[in-house]
Amino acid sequence: MRVVIVGGVAGGMSAAARLRRRDEGAEIIVLERGNYVSFANCGLPYYVGGEIEDSAKLLLHTPQSLKAALNLDVRINSEVSGIDPDGHCVTVSNTGTGEAYTLSYDYLILSPGALAARPPIDGLDSPRVHTLRTVDDTLALREASGTRAIVLGAGFIGIEAAEAFAARGFETHLVELAEHVLPPLEVEMATLVTRELRNLGVHVHAGVAAQAIAQADNNDVVTLSDGTVLHADVIVLSAGVRPDTAVVEAAGIQTRQGYVVLDDHGRTSADDIYAIGDGTIGCDQDRPVALAGPANRGGRLIADEIADAEHGEATARPIPSPQGTAIVRIGSLTAAMTGANRQALDASGTQYFTVHTHANQHAGYFPGAQPVHILMHVGAGGEILGAQAVGTDGVDRRIDVIATAMRAGLKAADLIDLDLAYAPPYGQAKDPVNQTGMVAHNVATGELILTGPDALTEDMPVLDVRTPGEYAAGHMPNSLNIPHTQLRDRLDEVRAWVDENAGEQPFVVMCAAGVRSWIGYRIVRAAGFDVTMLSGGIQTLRAWLGDRAATVLVKE
Amino acid sequence: MRVVIVGGVAGGMSAAARLRRRDEGAEIIVLERGNYVSFANCGLPYYVGGEIEDSAKLLLHTPQSLKAALNLDVRINSEVSGIDPDGHCVTVSNTGTGEAYTLSYDYLILSPGALAARPPIDGLDSPRVHTLRTVDDTLALREASGTRAIVLGAGFIGIEAAEAFAARGFETHLVELAEHVLPPLEVEMATLVTRELRNLGVHVHAGVAAQAIAQADNNDVVTLSDGTVLHADVIVLSAGVRPDTAVVEAAGIQTRQGYVVLDDHGRTSADDIYAIGDGTIGCDQDRPVALAGPANRGGRLIADEIADAEHGEATARPIPSPQGTAIVRIGSLTAAMTGANRQALDASGTQYFTVHTHANQHAGYFPGAQPVHILMHVGAGGEILGAQAVGTDGVDRRIDVIATAMRAGLKAADLIDLDLAYAPPYGQAKDPVNQTGMVAHNVATGELILTGPDALTEDMPVLDVRTPGEYAAGHMPNSLNIPHTQLRDRLDEVRAWVDENAGEQPFVVMCAAGVRSWIGYRIVRAAGFDVTMLSGGIQTLRAWLGDRAATVLVKE
Repeated sequence: MRVVIVGGVAGGMSAAARLRRRDEGAEIIVLERGNYVSFANCGLPYYVGGEIEDSAKLLLHTPQSLKAALNLDVRINSEVSGIDPDGHCVTVSNTGTGEAYTLSYDYLILSPGALAARPPIDGLDSPRVHTLRTVDDTLALREASGTRAIVLGAGFIGIEAAEAFAARGFETHLVELAEHVLPPLEVEMATLVTRELRNLGVHVHAGVAAQAIAQADNNDVVTLSDGTVLHADVIVLSAGVRPDTAVVEAAGIQTRQGYVVLDDHGRTSADDIYAIGDGTIGCDQDRPVALAGPANRGGRLIADEIADAEHGEATARPIPSPQGTAIVRIGSLTAAMTGANRQALDASGTQYFTVHTHANQHAGYFPGAQPVHILMHVGAGGEILGAQAVGTDGVDRRIDVIATAMRAGLKAADLIDLDLAYAPPYGQAKDPVNQTGMVAHNVATGELILTGPDALTEDMPVLDVRTPGEYAAGHMPNSLNIPHTQLRDRLDEVRAWVDENAGEQPFVVMCAAGVRSWIGYRIVRAAGFDVTMLSGGIQTLRAWLGDRAATVLVKE
Repeated sequence: MRVVIVGGVAGGMSAAARLRRRDEGAEIIVLERGNYVSFANCGLPYYVGGEIEDSAKLLLHTPQSLKAALNLDVRINSEVSGIDPDGHCVTVSNTGTGEAYTLSYDYLILSPGALAARPPIDGLDSPRVHTLRTVDDTLALREASGTRAIVLGAGFIGIEAAEAFAARGFETHLVELAEHVLPPLEVEMATLVTRELRNLGVHVHAGVAAQAIAQADNNDVVTLSDGTVLHADVIVLSAGVRPDTAVVEAAGIQTRQGYVVLDDHGRTSADDIYAIGDGTIGCDQDRPVALAGPANRGGRLIADEIADAEHGEATARPIPSPQGTAIVRIGSLTAAMTGANRQALDASGTQYFTVHTHANQHAGYFPGAQPVHILMHVGAGGEILGAQAVGTDGVDRRIDVIATAMRAGLKAADLIDLDLAYAPPYGQAKDPVNQTGMVAHNVATGELILTGPDALTEDMPVLDVRTPGEYAAGHMPNSLNIPHTQLRDRLDEVRAWVDENAGEQPFVVMCAAGVRSWIGYRIVRAAGFDVTMLSGGIQTLRAWLGDRAATVLVKE
């Protein structure tokens, strides 16, 4: 059996390694267009910033080491310029010499990957514009000299690149077309990321496009859609990716918007041809997920498919649709997500509600307690649709727990019962994930009616149950302040205020994070008032408002 | 409705807080024998060591603050000396004045807790012997003067106490009757904890009993069963707990080995009496679980039961059996566990196998990569029965993910597909949990046959596929060393060695952590040899052997 693998990073290399373990006798040929195989593609931005000091660390393997350990025939500088599915062969061109040859296969695994998307910006061909996809890109960016950097696109790689240049002392501008950085995050989470980027010295320009890049003598001049003019010694283009699948399409293999379409066993529309990674999409998937985890795990499962097919065994494990679990570090902050966001849910017409919590990552009385800001979207039937978390510690853990619960089909209320690791340095007896489940369950049972920050308007009457000091530091315009500990004794004041201000309208109870307002909400609701509670309190509200908080909130 | 709650910490207080949110009109009376309510019982050891500096931090609430926020009637120094289930009333004694009164209830919640177990040690009544269960215990231990401490019992609290005294500069001895510290851990995990305790300066005495404590003028003299004589200025007794349920038993409420027996709604055998916490056991539970998480979460669910019962609603959420998820910090190390350990599995006659992995917590090329040592027990049907992890980073996260998977009923192979958060500072594209699932799946499908460190005897033939340098630093006596990268070319040597040494006997392939030996195992198995692989490599073997490693392993 000869298996030819096109693309020697992540998914392709994972398939090769697994296949060797499944079949010592198989001939496994890996064709890689670039100079390097099996490099640490997710590590590249950290080398640009100097956090990874030795470029040798980025090269996990060489053709020689892969030959020795796994008996792989790895051919670098080898581009596949044609695929003949009927003839079961590919045409391979040497990128240096141009020489070409034909290679037959019994099974073909395509790991085509993606290229940097090129948005319509005048002057994008300036030599000061770099992408950050390959080892060569990375070496060039590490050596880039100057004092001013512009990063176009504030996705994962853009943010990592901006932090890298800021850490090197560059005046760094980060430009994002969407309304906020890290577009997959909800705005009330992304604001925290924006704040941290500013703390790192990164100038954030969100909601604006780069329109033109003009080459001057010593730098490039970038004009943004809001009229801002920036000067740059180096520009990083990280405005998304597009699948690198022209050769696959030319072979008549089914694609959708350029992505190779797969069934849940990793098979393309052509016999004996499998595919994996950033250039692919599952037939049931709404949108592609370009992440390393699914590519690496999927590559392994494809190897199992091929080994089973070759040995006439049943193919046991389908390749699961990726949930889109992702994580990024921003200075001392971590942002992570899994599942669907508001945009995806709204686009699909899904009914859902959203809860926000700010519980500490570990016991409040133990040194170093810090909030994990969690947001969770919950479907009408209580199903967990998606979650996001931002904080300085414990974010990865909580998103992983929720991602696992989602994969297993647990409902939001089931999060209440998770028996998670607790000791004061590590968690709380009611973990932030338990607490998020509790809030969701309170909503699902009708005990708690939330008003999201999106629905809170400036004219809505608000019962603010924080302390007078907190209240004075910033509150909604049409508010009554009664601390939650005084509420039972001051219900007459609430009544008078309702009669005067709110009338028939329900009012909103709020506090800092949602804990005291939950007590207050139950008190006034038991007293017969028509109320809702502000989800996540003013912490969520301030993040939702972003820079507008300064004008909307009233100080006294 | 009047609800009386006996015990004002953890489970009891959690029930009170939830009940108020469910029912603003309920009369809720909390009776607490001690001077304090709602104190941070899990935080006490950290105050003894000085890591929590302010004792006020240990007191989360006062009767006054609970009255103000939750309208609770909290009565401290109030001991329940009798329960009359038929009369629906309790007798309450003031621990100071001795005055007693009768209090009727509609519902009674018992949170009896546990007392320090008192093993049969002569002289245990010495005033230098302290327990560490209450705030008063803690204040006394913080003020204890001297230079020498002995901790009896190396469970969670004993380890925390030993670390606390070592941090204060005491010569600290930790004495454990079981064969190793942290008895719920498997020995190959506990050895890592022992090493770290020694790094912290703690003298560990495992497998020995304290036999007698003699009071001398300036210190106590403690004699151990191995003849060791130790001197102590302070002794901490932390040799387990026993349920504090004499009053409950006297009332005719069903107990088992002293623990109040509960159904899965938290109900005792008496009408309208519920119980929660360290002094209880589920009717289906094999052994009690004295942990804060289940107590806190269970208290909340009991409040829901009572609110539902009072309002004639269906009781929706049963109280789940605790999995025993637990975690402890030891210096820079974390140890955590969930589910059953070997002892419990063997006692119940369960068929299972065990896998060991040592994958890094994040990408190896990113600074600070450190192994997370994971052990997982897997049932004959692939079910996850229990898991343990030890390491310096990322241990809590991996155990929480596995605990969630267990709760959801996922199989070990399902861990392969978990879509966990990956970026180089946070994980690996194949997370340690994914990798552990992969190894388990390889075993379940018969691709991989493991030999555990328990089954490896000194006369067994071993093919050691590490480098010559690693091999020389310590290997099994009857070994052949061929690095995995040379194995395909040197199969003739393996054949000759097998003929000479092993004959018909299968041999064991080993390396450092199980990665290279997996490659080697597949190579020699494909060549027709009868082989197994050492689970977890020499890392696991060294930990299994503990101090015996120095004599068993051969250096060259």
